[in-house]
Formats: sequence, structure tokens, C-alpha cells
Amino acid sequence: MSAEIICVGTELLLGDILNSNAKFLAQQLAQLGIPHYYQTVVGDNPERIKQVIEIAASRVQILIFTGGLGPTPDDLTCETIADFFGVPLVENAAIIEDISEKFTQRGRVMSPSNRKQALIPQGAEILPNPTGTAPGIIWQPRPGLTILTFPGVPSEMHRMWSETAVPFLKSQGWGKEIIYSRSLKFWGIGESILAEKVSAYLNLPNPTVAPYAGNGEVRLRISAKASDSTASADLISPIEKQLREIGGLDCYGADDDTLASVVGDLLRSSGETLSVAESCTGGGLGQMLTEISGSSDYFLGGVISYDNSVKVGLLGVNPEDLDKFGAVSATVAEQMAVGVKGRLFTTWGLSITGIAGPTGGNVAKPVGLVYIGLAGSGDEVKSYECRFGAMWHRSFIRYMSACQALDNLRRSLLKR
Amino acid sequence: MSAEIICVGTELLLGDILNSNAKFLAQQLAQLGIPHYYQTVVGDNPERIKQVIEIAASRVQILIFTGGLGPTPDDLTCETIADFFGVPLVENAAIIEDISEKFTQRGRVMSPSNRKQALIPQGAEILPNPTGTAPGIIWQPRPGLTILTFPGVPSEMHRMWSETAVPFLKSQGWGKEIIYSRSLKFWGIGESILAEKVSAYLNLPNPTVAPYAGNGEVRLRISAKASDSTASADLISPIEKQLREIGGLDCYGADDDTLASVVGDLLRSSGETLSVAESCTGGGLGQMLTEISGSSDYFLGGVISYDNSVKVGLLGVNPEDLDKFGAVSATVAEQMAVGVKGRLFTTWGLSITGIAGPTGGNVAKPVGLVYIGLAGSGDEVKSYECRFGAMWHRSFIRYMSACQALDNLRRSLLKR
Repeated sequence: MSAEIICVGTELLLGDILNSNAKFLAQQLAQLGIPHYYQTVVGDNPERIKQVIEIAASRVQILIFTGGLGPTPDDLTCETIADFFGVPLVENAAIIEDISEKFTQRGRVMSPSNRKQALIPQGAEILPNPTGTAPGIIWQPRPGLTILTFPGVPSEMHRMWSETAVPFLKSQGWGKEIIYSRSLKFWGIGESILAEKVSAYLNLPNPTVAPYAGNGEVRLRISAKASDSTASADLISPIEKQLREIGGLDCYGADDDTLASVVGDLLRSSGETLSVAESCTGGGLGQMLTEISGSSDYFLGGVISYDNSVKVGLLGVNPEDLDKFGAVSATVAEQMAVGVKGRLFTTWGLSITGIAGPTGGNVAKPVGLVYIGLAGSGDEVKSYECRFGAMWHRSFIRYMSACQALDNLRRSLLKR
Repeated sequence: MSAEIICVGTELLLGDILNSNAKFLAQQLAQLGIPHYYQTVVGDNPERIKQVIEIAASRVQILIFTGGLGPTPDDLTCETIADFFGVPLVENAAIIEDISEKFTQRGRVMSPSNRKQALIPQGAEILPNPTGTAPGIIWQPRPGLTILTFPGVPSEMHRMWSETAVPFLKSQGWGKEIIYSRSLKFWGIGESILAEKVSAYLNLPNPTVAPYAGNGEVRLRISAKASDSTASADLISPIEKQLREIGGLDCYGADDDTLASVVGDLLRSSGETLSVAESCTGGGLGQMLTEISGSSDYFLGGVISYDNSVKVGLLGVNPEDLDKFGAVSATVAEQMAVGVKGRLFTTWGLSITGIAGPTGGNVAKPVGLVYIGLAGSGDEVKSYECRFGAMWHRSFIRYMSACQALDNLRRSLLKR
């Protein structure tokens, strides 16, 4: 018993997009313990789609389709599947209702072409799409063969998978032994150094421990094969505890934790508030903080002082210091932090000023040079110098700057 | 005459990595005008690899393999191909020499396992690997069938493709016609409605026109098959002109244009400046604007007024109106826009206040309700109500809000 992933879309054959859907589904199948030996990509062409169905149906028992469920004429997946198995399409009233309601919610009128999305093979069940207009199907066209279809839009597909497909597959007896994993997240330490520190753990049989690096942080993934979440917790917890001890302050959280959510929890628990003053990040730090629902408990707002006139006018930065030290300097970073803290009446003021590039750098102040200011209780104010290196892209330097600012605040909150 | 991309590697079936090789090769084949209708991913398993070869060899004339050329026992691609066609592997002296030389250059000794990489099917030509130890092959196992193999390491594969495979394919008569394409980008119109408006263009032979939807916008991709860029421009330009006319203001740009870059160009050309006041987006609008290098020409900064105290204190929003209409209201949006424009002395002030969710919504003001304020020249101020729908995630509602604000400004700049 095994599955095949079939991604339908000419844009994949043109190389317009990366096939992230195949990666997502492959990971998910692995977690459920469902074997999967083939992935196929085919264009929006009925004859070729049928040929792919014939091959896949001859070698696996679960066909998972993504793409080709849209309202346009080149979206052919569902009708081609029905056609292959010689089953008529029937219009589903519930889908029509759902689609028109979604259009109403967005203040738009459902177009006739959307009716096409309500046609599913006779006998197929709906695989509901909570966010988009294209539902999928769960269908047994013949004994021993199950077909699941998803739209190509990743965000829609992910929710449909976790909310409907996974429960269905488990009801079919899959996922008895599941791979549970927990990722510890580290900031301020490199992959190789961390790997050396935890080398004794990298060859464990169950749970396994593996390091991954990306987006400026390092993760240690602890993966346990177990029958249920309790059994997996018994395997993972002791190892996690030991790894956290080794990691110390560099380990900022696990799984869905972000630097912003961790900082937020610390501020909430201490009943403190935060404001930000941003130059080169232009709002990115505030966005990171407010990505967390409930951040209004501790984050009051800030000033985007992209232009020096705003640093002076709204933050009270000393114009002479701006001339003397430049906008990208420890002094200005500190004055920005003190300024925003005072004007928004918060416990903490956090600031960022730097050179995100690609232009604007020089020998003395290269692209990637960033100063972070942190004003805390009383008159206490600190600044931190970062040199991210001119080889990085503008967006990555901005991202790293915001993360580093959050990490500086995190460590200050923990060290007291 | 067409090609198939076959990616070999269990790491792809485990979902550990994105299949960027398939995307690269797909783009390259499209540019060379080599039709390619299928992509297959298979694990490091001889029997399944053979099955995939049998299927592919029966439907295409060029098989392009990536992966499975390494020195380890699970690298089986080359020997499995030879085995399938019943041809013996022969050790190639030139490859041995090349590999050992590369080891010497790195001050290392060639390990016995690397000798395996010097085995190629009898009669096959070497596809040299300038950077790595794993060479590929170019082989005609039988008339009318050509096989090319590449290692899975993208950087090695890219150089081997451009330095040897492309010249080889051109010598076979390919690449006389290349596919050039241009994507028109639309905001404020749904895929189905746009598709109906341009339906007459969706069945053109050359250039072709196809709609794609994602991230709240719709794109029309115009793809032309032509001998060179001039000829393709002659094909694309008139169609682009007509589609832009049909799209009207909904078409905001093409290819690398973003709403932020388009707004930026308009402001720069008119010598005007912009400031922002953000509540629910928390800095996301400012970040979008400053993602563009050179945005300091027109973007001065803004105020993140996440808490009402900041709306009053830094933006001068009337506290009584906050009580009367609520923070999420047209009145407050307008006062935020006027306030930030006045305090930062900009030509335009753009504001966002809304309910990003998942909490904080009610019947009167549901999640997804967003007000955008726009203060322009003189005392002119407008507000726009958006209802994105409560089914969306917080981050998407925030993203859509920032994009919509930019689009409102864009239309105001164009309509004068």
C-alpha cells in the first residue's frame, strides 16, 4: 500500500514556480508512515493527465493530486479524473453555496465560470476548502484505489490537508506509528559549533537529533517514532531538557516559537511594554512583533524614522549628533531608543539604524553595518553593533537586523 | 520530439529538500524550445528507476536525469541506466585522472569509493563536471533516444548544463526558437472575471496568454516562441498593449514590478513624498515601501499606532471619535492619515486600521474589516472600507491590507 503525488500545472513544466506542494506532501506522508515512491508532474492536458493516472493507478493505491481545480478553462484535473474512470460530473449545491458566500464576504459577485468548481465526480465526497473557492474531493473510483485532490495554492492545500485529509487517512488505519518531532531553535550560535556541542546526541537511534541551519538561525530537530503523542513525549522530553541545558541562552524556543513570540511572552509575564524606532528596517520590526495575535498586551507602537527629519522631529535625536556621528551610529541608535520610549511611555524602547544596501555603504560604514539601541528601565540605555556582511541581500540584512534586535531584548529580559 | 526530467533521490521523497533542479531544467528546456510534458521523481531504488526509464523512454526522446551519481552505495543512477539497456559499465581513465587531480588540489587523497564515479556505460560520452567529482554522461543507448545525467548538487548541475549540455542540444538542432515571456500583474480584479474579459486571448497560438492567481493578485503570462528577443518583442508588445487596455487601472505593472515599486516610481516622478500610519499592519506597509532600494527618495517614515494612546498622542486622533466610532472606523483612518501627513510634512499620508484577527471581531465589525485612510494635497482626505473575509489568516489579512492601501494610493496618483 503506497501513495503517489501527482502535481498538475503547466507553470511547473515552464519552471515558473518551485514545486513546494510536492515537498509538503512528501513530508506529511513520511510523518504518517505512508510509503511514497513516485512523484509525477504533468501539464494541464487531458490526454497526458489520463496517461499519468493509468500509470499511477497501476502501481499505487492512493493518488494525491494538486493543481488544476481553478475556475479557468485550463483547470482540468477533476473532470479528467472523472472522465478516465467513466463517471459523470454532478453539480454540488453545497459547493455552489459555499463559493457564492465567499464572494459575498469579499463584496464581489460570483462569476459563472466558478460554477465549474462545483462539479465533482458522482459518488465523490467533498474535501472542503476553508479559504479558497476550489474544493477538493475524496473518491474511491474502484475498490482499493483512493483519490484525493487539492488546489495548487499552497496555503489552501495545507489547511485542507491537515483539517480533512489527515483525519481521513488516519480513519483508514494510517499513522499508527507516527514520526513526532520537536525543533529547538537557537539564535546567536553557528551550526558547526552547536553540532560540536551536541555531537554526542547526533547518533541516537530513537529519538534522532539532527541540526538544520537557515534564515540566520539553527534548529535541532528531535524526531521520535512512536504510537502516540504520550509515548513520543516520553522519548523527546528528556533529550530536549539536556539539549536546552547545553544550549543555554542561545536556545530561544521550540517549534512555533519565534523571537517575537518569546519576547512577547516575557514582556507579558513581567507586565512591561515595548515601543520601536526603525530606520533601515522601515517597519519590519514592528511587523514581526504584531504578527503575534495578542501583541497589543505589550506592544504599543513606534516610529518609522526612515528620514533623518523624522529622527529629529518625532524622536528628538540631536541634529548635531546626526551630523557628527551619522545616522548609522551607536549614539543615534541610543537616542532613537530613548526617544521612542519616552514619547510612547513604554518600559522598553528598541531601535534599529543601519545600511541595508545594496547602495549607501562605504569603507568606514559598509553595507550590513547595523546599530541596535535598547532603552530600559530608568535611564539605562545600551547599543549593539552588528556587521552582517555586504554579501547579503537587502531584505536579508533587514530581516537579520529585526531578529537581532529582538534577541538583544530577549537576553536583557532574561539576564535580570 | 520532447524531453522528460527524472530526478533521482530519496531525500526528495522524504520532503527534505525542494526540487529546485526540476525548476531549473524546466526553465532551461522552455528557453531552448524543447517540449517537456512530464517530470518524475523516484527514489534510489534500481527496480523503480528501471520502471521509470521504461515509461519515459516510451513517450519521450530525451531523458534528463539528476541525482544518484555520487560515490556512496545508494548512488545508482548510472549503473541502473546501463543495466536497463543491457550495456556494461567501463572504467574511464580520464575521469579517474580528473577526480584524483581534484582531490590533490584540495590536499586530500582520492578514496576507493570514488572509482565508482569513473564507471560509465560503454559508448557513452563524458559530460564533464568542472567543480565536483561526479561527471555526467551523454549517451544514445539506441537510435532516437538520448540520455543526459547530472549530479544532484545544483551548482555543479547548472555549470554542466550551460557549458556542455546546451551546446550539445543546440548541435542537435534545438534552441533555434526560444520561449520569451512577460507577466502582466493585476490588482483589484478576480481571476475568473479577468479571464472572461480576456477570453479572446486565451486560445492564441503564439504568443500564448494564460492567467495565474496567487497572493491576492492575478497575473496574465504572455509567452512567445521566437528566434530572438527582438522577434519575441514584436509578438508580445501588441498583445501586451491590448491586454493593458482591457485591464485598465487594474493592471498595475509587469514582471518584477510590485505595488510598492510602482507607487514609488509615481511619487518620484511627481516629486511627492509619503508617510504612513499603521495600526493592524504594525509596520508592514512601511516595510513593503522600504523593501525598495532608493525608497528614501519619497518615503519619509511613519507612525506605528498600534495602541490607541499612540493614535491620540502621536497622530492627533480625536479621543471622542475613538470612543464614538471605534479604532476601526473610517473617521479614525482619515484622522490617522491627516495626522501623519501633517507631522511628517509629506505630500501624502496613508493609514491602515483594521481587525486582523483571529480574535477581536464581532458581528458589526468582523475579522477582516479594514479601513484605509488617504490624505492628499490640501485638505483632501478619503477613506476606503475593505472586507477581506474572516476565513483568512491574520498574516494574509495584514498583507492584503498593506497591498490594498498601496493600490488605493496608486489609483489616486494615476487618476489626477
